[in-house]
Amino acid sequence: MNDVTSLATEECEACKAGAPKVSDKEIEAFLLQFSDWQLLEKDGIKMLYKEYSFKDFASALAFTNRVGILAEALQHHPDILTSWGKVALTWYTHKIGGLHRNDFRCAARSDLLLT
Amino acid sequence: MNDVTSLATEECEACKAGAPKVSDKEIEAFLLQFSDWQLLEKDGIKMLYKEYSFKDFASALAFTNRVGILAEALQHHPDILTSWGKVALTWYTHKIGGLHRNDFRCAARSDLLLT
Repeated sequence: MNDVTSLATEECEACKAGAPKVSDKEIEAFLLQFSDWQLLEKDGIKMLYKEYSFKDFASALAFTNRVGILAEALQHHPDILTSWGKVALTWYTHKIGGLHRNDFRCAARSDLLLT
Repeated sequence: MNDVTSLATEECEACKAGAPKVSDKEIEAFLLQFSDWQLLEKDGIKMLYKEYSFKDFASALAFTNRVGILAEALQHHPDILTSWGKVALTWYTHKIGGLHRNDFRCAARSDLLLT
């Protein structure tokens, strides 16, 4: 049960330093299911990245705000790049220097904010 | 008269393809005055870049929205990277593939949105 709705409705855990990173196999399974998401690696830190397209700047900024509300509710914050007609999201867990299962959940929830 | 207020209150011109780019000398003068701004160059396109710090995510997102309102009013849109406690702005003029004087004005106006 790894589809967008079930993953998005999983409760996010409080994440502490030392919490387990997801395995490469779990990342692979996620990317197979969520094929619009890409795996990035910067300075050895794995991240989930996706670009969303919009018809104009205002629509992009509205999505940024929806993601912002989600981020505040979960107290887990992505990098959000807003530009004309585009929002790029990067999710990772700063405290563990990589990807926690929460990041999968947040990516799935971000997708649901479009609908 | 190139201080923040006078530059910020200059009216932005409608910018078309073929409009003049600012000269290297003008860029140098701008950066001398607005020393928190940096000049970036990506794929041969010159851009103005600045990072603003905030106490938390909500304050950063609030600034992003103020910049967004400015951008919509001027119909000139920067790239806005929002993350926890930080907003990074990149201004340039897509149509001319570089920096127009409007970008100086928008950078100055962005600074005023902090106050």
